[in-house]
Amino acid sequence: MEMETKRPLILITNDDSIHAPGITYLARIAARFADVFVVAPTAPRSGQSAAITVGSPLRINETATDVEGARFFTVNGTPVDCIKLAMHDIVPRRPDFIFSGINHGSNSAVNVTYSGTMGAVIEGCIQGIPSVGFSLLHHSMKADFSLSEELVSKIIGKIIDKGLPEGVCLNINIPARVVPEGIKVCRAARGRWTDEYKRYLDPQGVPFYWLIGSFLNLEPEADDTDEYWLQRRHITVVPVSPDMTATASLKTVGQLFD
Amino acid sequence: MEMETKRPLILITNDDSIHAPGITYLARIAARFADVFVVAPTAPRSGQSAAITVGSPLRINETATDVEGARFFTVNGTPVDCIKLAMHDIVPRRPDFIFSGINHGSNSAVNVTYSGTMGAVIEGCIQGIPSVGFSLLHHSMKADFSLSEELVSKIIGKIIDKGLPEGVCLNINIPARVVPEGIKVCRAARGRWTDEYKRYLDPQGVPFYWLIGSFLNLEPEADDTDEYWLQRRHITVVPVSPDMTATASLKTVGQLFD
Repeated sequence: MEMETKRPLILITNDDSIHAPGITYLARIAARFADVFVVAPTAPRSGQSAAITVGSPLRINETATDVEGARFFTVNGTPVDCIKLAMHDIVPRRPDFIFSGINHGSNSAVNVTYSGTMGAVIEGCIQGIPSVGFSLLHHSMKADFSLSEELVSKIIGKIIDKGLPEGVCLNINIPARVVPEGIKVCRAARGRWTDEYKRYLDPQGVPFYWLIGSFLNLEPEADDTDEYWLQRRHITVVPVSPDMTATASLKTVGQLFD
Repeated sequence: MEMETKRPLILITNDDSIHAPGITYLARIAARFADVFVVAPTAPRSGQSAAITVGSPLRINETATDVEGARFFTVNGTPVDCIKLAMHDIVPRRPDFIFSGINHGSNSAVNVTYSGTMGAVIEGCIQGIPSVGFSLLHHSMKADFSLSEELVSKIIGKIIDKGLPEGVCLNINIPARVVPEGIKVCRAARGRWTDEYKRYLDPQGVPFYWLIGSFLNLEPEADDTDEYWLQRRHITVVPVSPDMTATASLKTVGQLFD
């Protein structure tokens, strides 16, 4: 029993829901290193950023799993709700690490802002827990995670072994097919989404709009960005800070109000 | 007519919905300086962060207003949806400024992460438009905005006159009662929310949970933070960067994976 209690505790969530293959895959790898609690949204919550449920009740349900060393729960809320409620009422002790994913689809560049996967990671970091998001550049629910298993397992081992700097979490993106030994620590490429809605007419002739759009990389040549290295089939690791104060601009902005 | 087309265009949203007094109040001040388009959520969307609606349709409806020089629209989505859809399909030209608020309640410190008000501001900044969020430290829908009208109007005048540094937006919080000439440009206090859920039993005896909690300021003595100056009844202006890469940690994190 003593060995059991010395194992680290890892809390895992995602934004694709408890039913997404990526989260079971991540739980299975994590359970080699730690006691695992999976607490994930009941339904898909992609694009939820760091949203929280403020005006309605949340419920917790435990569900079955065949992942040894792990327990699985659902919460009918956002990824950040999952982290907050898990820490308040599900995990038996403070988690040593929080992992999110493996997301089905990229969270590179500006997507860190909209991503529910990364919203949960940022929440973990705010709570002072080393937190990491994993995303595979493959939207399909049939995505093949096994191609990157060895590298992902190695990365998780290193994070558990060495920890993370204080106040910093990681946004890790994984190409569908990775080059051998291809890991790059880099910054998020500057960019934004464009052409963002498809317009329809409903049967009454009234318009409605559906989110679409394509990503515009504002610095495609810069060789120190995640977009650059993902295109070259490397796993990218971007250190992310939840503190959004633009410290370098304090003086300039101060002069505005003199 | 020529004078009209030379007026700047200001796009305004919030997260308290089109029905909140704060947004009409902000639109009224902005309309003194500019042509104003208000595009706000149909229903309250507090705590929505930078969430986007990815899997369901959005609708636009124009609504009546007595604010001269402004047009009011609703979108059945999040604050970020409002900005994206407004720019795609509502405003006649690219906005010169994006304002969000005036929020009913504080968005100081870590609340910038969860705030729908600030989610919209960060979206505006990502789109390359000078963007500012305004929040009043008073939750009531009967909050008295007039007490700070002179200072808010002065701030808006300066922002329109001088613009903002590239890549930086502003998070402005306004105490319920402001000391004269009380404006501080400062950083967000480090902190987090604690004790976050009240537990209930439903009539069947099954538990459910409701978000609650209190803010823990991790540096109450630091005199360069928004929390410090808000307590001293100053308006606080925090410059915010949407780029979350922790540049200073690139090297340390790089060593993790050597």
